[in-house]
Amino acid sequence: MNLSLLSARRYMVTSSKHWKLAATRTMATKSFNIGQPLTSQHRVYFENDGKLISPFHDIPLYADENSQSIVNMIVEIPRWSNAKVEISTKEKHNPIKQDVKKGKLRFVRNCFPYKGYIWNYGALPQTWEDPDMMNKDTQAKGDNDPVDVCEIGQEVGKCGEIKKVKVLGVMALLDEGETDWKVLAIDVNDPLASEINDIKDIERHFPGLIDATRRWFKIYKVPDGKPINEFAFDGACQNKDYATSVIQETHEAWRRLIEGKRDTNANGISLANTTVENSPFKSKTPQCKSDVSLGFDQHEQVAEPDQKWYYIRD
Amino acid sequence: MNLSLLSARRYMVTSSKHWKLAATRTMATKSFNIGQPLTSQHRVYFENDGKLISPFHDIPLYADENSQSIVNMIVEIPRWSNAKVEISTKEKHNPIKQDVKKGKLRFVRNCFPYKGYIWNYGALPQTWEDPDMMNKDTQAKGDNDPVDVCEIGQEVGKCGEIKKVKVLGVMALLDEGETDWKVLAIDVNDPLASEINDIKDIERHFPGLIDATRRWFKIYKVPDGKPINEFAFDGACQNKDYATSVIQETHEAWRRLIEGKRDTNANGISLANTTVENSPFKSKTPQCKSDVSLGFDQHEQVAEPDQKWYYIRD
Repeated sequence: MNLSLLSARRYMVTSSKHWKLAATRTMATKSFNIGQPLTSQHRVYFENDGKLISPFHDIPLYADENSQSIVNMIVEIPRWSNAKVEISTKEKHNPIKQDVKKGKLRFVRNCFPYKGYIWNYGALPQTWEDPDMMNKDTQAKGDNDPVDVCEIGQEVGKCGEIKKVKVLGVMALLDEGETDWKVLAIDVNDPLASEINDIKDIERHFPGLIDATRRWFKIYKVPDGKPINEFAFDGACQNKDYATSVIQETHEAWRRLIEGKRDTNANGISLANTTVENSPFKSKTPQCKSDVSLGFDQHEQVAEPDQKWYYIRD
Repeated sequence: MNLSLLSARRYMVTSSKHWKLAATRTMATKSFNIGQPLTSQHRVYFENDGKLISPFHDIPLYADENSQSIVNMIVEIPRWSNAKVEISTKEKHNPIKQDVKKGKLRFVRNCFPYKGYIWNYGALPQTWEDPDMMNKDTQAKGDNDPVDVCEIGQEVGKCGEIKKVKVLGVMALLDEGETDWKVLAIDVNDPLASEINDIKDIERHFPGLIDATRRWFKIYKVPDGKPINEFAFDGACQNKDYATSVIQETHEAWRRLIEGKRDTNANGISLANTTVENSPFKSKTPQCKSDVSLGFDQHEQVAEPDQKWYYIRD
């Protein structure tokens, strides 16, 4: 279980170019596990003051009132691990769970020279890549998920942890034809954080990491029979300003969604939340841990990742 | 604990260029743990038919009577792990233990883009790199250890496992000025083993692995303040024939040692064994598990490796 003190704010969009704080309060959020990791029943739920909250909708995106580039990140996949766990957009309370493909728990393969994911990987809360909106730069629609983040700090994160991170840049993966932004960020508590403020600093302090990131996303599905992924911008990493504008746009898309201004049935997303003002999906009777703790099979065997190292020519 | 059926043979050296089998028998060897891994008291001992044996001296080098390139390997460090565990040449029975430097358990650092060791790493039994013998090709003396092996098969090995491997090539690391052979080999049971017979096959099936191996050994001590390591042969990997001749020479050096033809006090190596004919150090009263199981502190805390990723410019 991870405990984070979050600076939670209600967020009022005044225009697409400006942002403004409406209120600030402090939240004690923690995550807890239901079931065994590496089983289909495993879930990581989030609670605040004993009430279930959604990490997708109830954890504030912005984490510092003085900066648009300091955001909260929900850690899903610790560096060097393989289980493809992510926020379930469709399940109530949006717990983190392991993805299932063709009846099997999904693991990303190890593509030489990498072992598992090469950063702490996770999502930005209160963002949404709208699958009906064509992005003018990428010429591709969104993938119906929150924005993904690659956190490059030295610490190995924990699934369900909430990290306050500094946004550094963004790459535009076209994953099977959809825009799938990959924000690069660093934990504000990392020993190097104060020296790293934009993509040029990544190359200076972490030489080779941007190239490795590009290659990792290109090849990671090849062992599963998929083609090499493409990037917009010829694979170039866009800078911090571009990244914060992408985050802002996807935050606004999320806001339209959570405020009921989009037809949501088609997307299948669970919008239940406990904190979002102006949301018709805000619950008046929040649930708690015991509402989700019951009735799972304790005997399911733990899945094991494929240990093979795949060598991809690209 | 790992159970291996070994084809053990007494080995008679007839000349430095020829080898000959003297006898073949089957041995049921297994390893067992004393103490907790990642503590200073942890040991992995080997036993055969209930009697302690030395993995350094009593496990036969050659594992196939028809080939000089099929050898036994003692797995010390599983792929992707960091604890620097190795056969203790100085302790009685030569158990595997974690190296200690400056009072601390030793871990190799993670040098980007690698996570821990990038192969199953271990030693060839019945080999010794003679510290008084200048090698004509490397122009450097031996490092007083058994020959190291990098096993490149897909399975992640276990500490204390004995793998039968096919020799493919060798690189001559000059680790802090000493010759430190790194044999490249593949588990004979790997699905690709039949297709991989020499270094050229490594590059074909594992593209980039030889370059990564070279770079890994060059930089792995840099985070600890050491210089970049050098290689003999300009870093080139020598072929299978060269590797088998290195193994033969180091086997002969070991034989001189175990037969008491070298001054061993200076080297501090424990030569106690239970099976080597013509060895003055062969024990007539072998010990067993209970002789080494007693008297260790159960309360020592488990050490944790440094999780940082080090970025080395080379």
